[in-house]
Amino acid sequence: MTDLDNLRVVLVAARNPLNIGAAARAMSNFGVGRLRVVNPYELAFREARSAVGAADLLAQAEEYASVGEAVADCKLVVGTTAAGQRRELQHRLLRLEEGSRLIKRQLKVGPVALLFGSERVGLSNQEMSYCHWVTRIPTREEHGSMNLGQAVAVCLYELVRGEKTTSAKILAAKKEKTRPTSEDVERLTQALLEVLRASGYVKPRTVAAEERSRRLLRRIELSANDAEVWLGMLRQIAWKLGGGE
Amino acid sequence: MTDLDNLRVVLVAARNPLNIGAAARAMSNFGVGRLRVVNPYELAFREARSAVGAADLLAQAEEYASVGEAVADCKLVVGTTAAGQRRELQHRLLRLEEGSRLIKRQLKVGPVALLFGSERVGLSNQEMSYCHWVTRIPTREEHGSMNLGQAVAVCLYELVRGEKTTSAKILAAKKEKTRPTSEDVERLTQALLEVLRASGYVKPRTVAAEERSRRLLRRIELSANDAEVWLGMLRQIAWKLGGGE
Repeated sequence: MTDLDNLRVVLVAARNPLNIGAAARAMSNFGVGRLRVVNPYELAFREARSAVGAADLLAQAEEYASVGEAVADCKLVVGTTAAGQRRELQHRLLRLEEGSRLIKRQLKVGPVALLFGSERVGLSNQEMSYCHWVTRIPTREEHGSMNLGQAVAVCLYELVRGEKTTSAKILAAKKEKTRPTSEDVERLTQALLEVLRASGYVKPRTVAAEERSRRLLRRIELSANDAEVWLGMLRQIAWKLGGGE
Repeated sequence: MTDLDNLRVVLVAARNPLNIGAAARAMSNFGVGRLRVVNPYELAFREARSAVGAADLLAQAEEYASVGEAVADCKLVVGTTAAGQRRELQHRLLRLEEGSRLIKRQLKVGPVALLFGSERVGLSNQEMSYCHWVTRIPTREEHGSMNLGQAVAVCLYELVRGEKTTSAKILAAKKEKTRPTSEDVERLTQALLEVLRASGYVKPRTVAAEERSRRLLRRIELSANDAEVWLGMLRQIAWKLGGGE
């Protein structure tokens, strides 16, 4: 069980099956399983059930006749809006970054509802009246209204972002491990220098050239694997320059 | 002019007009105007031009025949993937939160390309070989693959969320200014390839070798100055390998 099991995504009067399906897919992508629909267009809801990778989630969606019933068990109810300054809002409006901090805090202790209105008009004042506050994705004033499926994806992303998964931690640890030793890089430096001398790019026994090569190879921060690849290439080139056939 | 004017969203081989339209809409929502498409299914691209609120943006989209051409003027090229641990990635993989910090830094000084692959298979290894590194939205391992329009929305959201400017960022931006363009790095790739072939390190006309070289040079993230130094070295070596005296 994760905190996200406490999240209920509530779609109010969604009318496009593609959007319902897209919302479900984003939920599945981000590990949110509980979908609630209020008054969906019946046909849209039925057609949506084929959403890529989220059929189960849609099949288990709960239907409600009103927003009040859909959020009854939730201790925090958050509406979404594209309105910004233009619409007369009766609610406190928080930017998504800010709002999600409060949502995450509440998810640790109990169910939270996140409401999305219909594609055309968003949440009505009546529907909004169940919300504790309202959040807004920071879109442009000139074109604030997002596609429903995209809005759901962005909101859920904000809720999961910055949480390090175990695989991310392993990746980060691996990255550090893959650096070559100074000895490896020095071997590479000498190989480069040999090639540069054999090709006439630098004169034999120029000390400055050695230092320049050393710095050049340190600046690029090779991985251990790549360092080996470069070493192999340079040795082959050196051999060829030396007259190898 | 904002930093986001430097961003190029590049859709590679997108096949669903709804997804192209959704990508354009998200761009408009977040104030990103420059769309590039590589080999779109012609019909899909034409049908997409009705996207809600983003018709102008779509009409001004630039079409390219290859990823190389689409990113030629960009100093940072970032791929997106759903792959996580499962696919053998040749690139450094950064979580979106982390990657977007680097992208934002580069946007202050020059064009950045953000690549999205086709709906079915994502970016191919060949397409990916133009990228400096790859970013991943932190979706679940079990259902990592996002809808294209939603993936674009999430990535752009991450780029606009919580913006703050500090003198430290300005300093960092100065460093980024020195990056070579993709065109420069490609010139370097071809020079390296010539040397590798002339030295017998790779067989003539091996496609995999070209991709490997491309990736190798993107991974090391050279400065523009160093790229020039390397190009000079490689050309001298090539000349010598060709029998120059």
